[in-house]
Amino acid sequence: METGWSPVPRNRVTIQGGFWRKWRDLIGNVTLMHQLEEMRGEGHIDALELDQRMHRGRSLGDGWYWGASIFWDSDLAKWLEAASAYLEQNKDDRLEQAMDDIIARFERAQAPDGYVNSHFLTWRPRHRFKNLRDLHELYCAGHLIEAAVVHYEATGKPSLLTVARRFADLLVKRFGPGPNQTPGYCGHPEIELALVRLYRLTNEPSYLELSRFFVNQRGQEPNFFDLEAAARLDSEPFRPNHPGSPYAYMQAHQPIRDQSKVVGHAVRAMYLFSAVTDIALETTDASLLQAAERIWRDVIDTKLYITGGIGSASENEGFTRDYDLPNERAYAETCASIGLFLFAHRLLQSRLSSEFGDVMELALYNCILSGIGLDGKTFFYDNPLASHGQHRRIPWPWWCPCCPPNLARLINSLSGYLISARAEDIAIHHYVTGEATLDNVRLQVESGLPFSGETRITVTTDDPRERTLALRVPGWAGQITVWLNGAEARPESSDGYFLFRRTWQTGDRIDLRFDMPIRKKFARFEVDADRGRMALMRGPLVYCLEQVDNGPQLDRLIIPVEKDFRPVESEQLLNGVVTLRGHAIQEKPPENQSLYRDQPPSTETVEITAIPYYAWANRGAGEMQIWTRSR
Amino acid sequence: METGWSPVPRNRVTIQGGFWRKWRDLIGNVTLMHQLEEMRGEGHIDALELDQRMHRGRSLGDGWYWGASIFWDSDLAKWLEAASAYLEQNKDDRLEQAMDDIIARFERAQAPDGYVNSHFLTWRPRHRFKNLRDLHELYCAGHLIEAAVVHYEATGKPSLLTVARRFADLLVKRFGPGPNQTPGYCGHPEIELALVRLYRLTNEPSYLELSRFFVNQRGQEPNFFDLEAAARLDSEPFRPNHPGSPYAYMQAHQPIRDQSKVVGHAVRAMYLFSAVTDIALETTDASLLQAAERIWRDVIDTKLYITGGIGSASENEGFTRDYDLPNERAYAETCASIGLFLFAHRLLQSRLSSEFGDVMELALYNCILSGIGLDGKTFFYDNPLASHGQHRRIPWPWWCPCCPPNLARLINSLSGYLISARAEDIAIHHYVTGEATLDNVRLQVESGLPFSGETRITVTTDDPRERTLALRVPGWAGQITVWLNGAEARPESSDGYFLFRRTWQTGDRIDLRFDMPIRKKFARFEVDADRGRMALMRGPLVYCLEQVDNGPQLDRLIIPVEKDFRPVESEQLLNGVVTLRGHAIQEKPPENQSLYRDQPPSTETVEITAIPYYAWANRGAGEMQIWTRSR
Repeated sequence: METGWSPVPRNRVTIQGGFWRKWRDLIGNVTLMHQLEEMRGEGHIDALELDQRMHRGRSLGDGWYWGASIFWDSDLAKWLEAASAYLEQNKDDRLEQAMDDIIARFERAQAPDGYVNSHFLTWRPRHRFKNLRDLHELYCAGHLIEAAVVHYEATGKPSLLTVARRFADLLVKRFGPGPNQTPGYCGHPEIELALVRLYRLTNEPSYLELSRFFVNQRGQEPNFFDLEAAARLDSEPFRPNHPGSPYAYMQAHQPIRDQSKVVGHAVRAMYLFSAVTDIALETTDASLLQAAERIWRDVIDTKLYITGGIGSASENEGFTRDYDLPNERAYAETCASIGLFLFAHRLLQSRLSSEFGDVMELALYNCILSGIGLDGKTFFYDNPLASHGQHRRIPWPWWCPCCPPNLARLINSLSGYLISARAEDIAIHHYVTGEATLDNVRLQVESGLPFSGETRITVTTDDPRERTLALRVPGWAGQITVWLNGAEARPESSDGYFLFRRTWQTGDRIDLRFDMPIRKKFARFEVDADRGRMALMRGPLVYCLEQVDNGPQLDRLIIPVEKDFRPVESEQLLNGVVTLRGHAIQEKPPENQSLYRDQPPSTETVEITAIPYYAWANRGAGEMQIWTRSR
Repeated sequence: METGWSPVPRNRVTIQGGFWRKWRDLIGNVTLMHQLEEMRGEGHIDALELDQRMHRGRSLGDGWYWGASIFWDSDLAKWLEAASAYLEQNKDDRLEQAMDDIIARFERAQAPDGYVNSHFLTWRPRHRFKNLRDLHELYCAGHLIEAAVVHYEATGKPSLLTVARRFADLLVKRFGPGPNQTPGYCGHPEIELALVRLYRLTNEPSYLELSRFFVNQRGQEPNFFDLEAAARLDSEPFRPNHPGSPYAYMQAHQPIRDQSKVVGHAVRAMYLFSAVTDIALETTDASLLQAAERIWRDVIDTKLYITGGIGSASENEGFTRDYDLPNERAYAETCASIGLFLFAHRLLQSRLSSEFGDVMELALYNCILSGIGLDGKTFFYDNPLASHGQHRRIPWPWWCPCCPPNLARLINSLSGYLISARAEDIAIHHYVTGEATLDNVRLQVESGLPFSGETRITVTTDDPRERTLALRVPGWAGQITVWLNGAEARPESSDGYFLFRRTWQTGDRIDLRFDMPIRKKFARFEVDADRGRMALMRGPLVYCLEQVDNGPQLDRLIIPVEKDFRPVESEQLLNGVVTLRGHAIQEKPPENQSLYRDQPPSTETVEITAIPYYAWANRGAGEMQIWTRSR
């Protein structure tokens, strides 16, 4: 099962133009400073001074403060990761100073034994490791570790990595099966994948071993969270009404290898199974990989919004029953789709299958990108697929600011998710204009995605060798044409990848043309919310109707199945998009007060315009819908 | 505004055959004894002995027992009313003995001052009139009074009437605006309409005056329920999340004359506005009648299910926002539709308009009759318009058994709702096979309703006079043909009534043929739940699809607007019904696991059978739906 594929690192790939360069620049120039100011204003940064007076916020009684949030450190860490990744390829003195200042505060806050968490050190000094179930303690540690890994890779400075390793070493001592160790794991998975990243950077096996312990221990009986609650004398029932069972909320209801349905909090599930896949690959553990694949299958076949969103319910920020995918009250948290992206990327290293890249792309271009406004300063936490105008972007989800910095770190790290390598072979999963520099070959990519399906890949090498270049064929492609050095080619393909094996020389060139037909999408019958409805897609983009283009009461529109739509390049609209135009039937408003009548509503034909879903809610409040009635 | 119309009393009209005779016989022969046994088993009857040990039931803590229900007496009273109305025209010694036994217990339970309520006398002797808001005390009194009126009318025995009048006299002393009186009213309206009935029987004006006081006092500031709660030292907020405002739950949020939208608990609203209309008519109060008409308009235009059900939400057993009419989770309590029937019947005495009769008929033949199984021994409390098979009839809704005896008393009293008279004029609202005997004329009616729209009315009189016979033209009628003594007639009509003015002689005969086309009904756009859907009706009957006839996954069916259906007489089915047969398109099941696909589902044409809604859930568990997708 070991395939040997591994991602070409973030710092070996540059994004030099096109769609994602614009986003990366916006996030570097606008978003990071905006987020920093918001976190400064809320008190995240001062909190690291470990002075209760610095913790601002509103009291909720019982010693709980929204201001003194248990996960503030994690948001700072995600921001550090995002800023590090940005500074890896850009220069910005203000950002760098802000970054160093925060790192210095983490250094000062760290206890002599290596422990660091501003919430516990300030508000709950005696509660350390006493409530792994609820308090996100190891989750915060995980984000600190991830930030440290990227900061070190990006800057070469050991400052944050030293803090993180001291903390990680403390965790290695504290957690495990030994007689003086705690046999616990975190209610919110994150530490697991972070420890694998730290292991990969440092080659220190105890980090991988601890991560593996956390994964293997999860859901074993007696359940650690029961023991922990008893030790705290806590007799409150935990989430008694959670679908399935209480601990399904955090995927701790049964051992990982016994799980076959994805349950509970969506971000937790995705972070957990990302780590599960990592460990399966690092330790050649087929049973773990099978568990990850089962969970993947369940997500994709029964719980995935067409936008790449997952986790339909706000109650548990997560999964419910199969096919329960409401549109207007979809939760579809930005972080959950980021987690799905991460999970798919892990699985992609286990085997090349275009399905993984298709889902990464779907999540990235739709649900994830929907999470940030075109101004770079406003955000969605949840990403519904329909709205009556109440859903607005906000500058900062202060009550739980996980998504904005998560989104920033993902987009700034995007270059690390595009390409994999295995010995001499190279697999390009995502076509993004830029350059990848491997040991002995350089690939230049020019791509029109997401609005055009034309891509050119040019090879430069001083050391021509026989190698396979694997190129993902997107699931959305219509007619596909491929040229090798200008001559039409018919490469073999496997699992949705074109495989070009040859001795590559400088100047070798592949041109790909993936036609982008406008696709009408229909959900399977079991999805109540989408029955009798149609969604429009083109390339990786899901489209939606907005009131500003189509008038109010969007649900009066009916798209006949046979009607054609056409793409329209709209350079001035929404920072430049391709819209879709076509005709629909519109039910006319009722003529009188009757609730019921003997005739169907009269209709007229109207022209409608659909925009990419990610760009909605950037022109004021109004209705939006992805799924339009059809007949 | 005083129109002078009043109902021809129940005991002047007999139901001699056809659809309603079968139901009346079933209820007399089966339902009444079944209900008696259920109430005996639960403890309703023994509770009247005022011995706590006789109150059986389950403790809910805090001194609350489901068994010792606060409204048990009212269910006994409704049963007494139903039994009295049955015995008015039938003989049954067992029933009569049971009735007399219960009445004797009420007599023994009555306190020297006239107070009678088994719950308060047993469980809360010191709480008398201390919590009018929640405890249904005057509601129970109201049902006792209604039962007493009917019992006296039916049997001539003074026993129960004496009990009721002594209690009513106590209430007259206790409640009112005077210095030693309580300026309160009941959280659950019912006493108001009961007092009007008692006034009409006894001509004692203090009963009408008290009812009028209750109505006028309702919703005045300071709100009595606030004062009452303060006097109890009760600081718990009352229904803080009720739509609109807390006291909107019981229509006490503002004075009656200021109310223009129907709000809150549906049964309460209907009983209240029935009384409001009664009082408006008795006291010639135009502003009260206008309030009643406004509320009527709001119900009919924005909150009425196609079945005649009202009150869509279980949370408040009542109304929510305009057009909020979900199907599967419809509450649509049987009692609420009975209340709507009563309210419409009151308004009908204020002016002849076929709309009132149409709604009475709609409620009666659909939502109300749905509340009882064809076996006469099983019931629905709530009447959803769609089901995945979980909704089953039950022998007794023990936690709140209001609907079954309410349904029995309505159907046994049906003859009192069919015809009105004004001086010499007669208005027939509902065509039911039977005979009406007025002072100087007898009308015989033969009708095929609800399955055929043919009716014959024959006159017998010893005293030929000029009078108007007003005959309601149902809103569902297609082509209408009328014959007077065999010759086609073209009577004038007004507000949906044919007006025949002539000197009627014995042997005069009117034949009516109201064609019953199968009507496809469409809800207005604002009703989310029915958008893109169609319901089938024929005559007054709403039809539904059941799984037993049409297979599972009924929502795979799509009825093309242009498809015709045909009526099929099915004598052997469901005690004899007319079914509707026709063709629909059925989406085929998906061929693979994909959640989304590029093609609409493939379809096939299938024959489908619809049955009258009232008769559903009599052939085992299965899916049902009224609103079918259409295109």
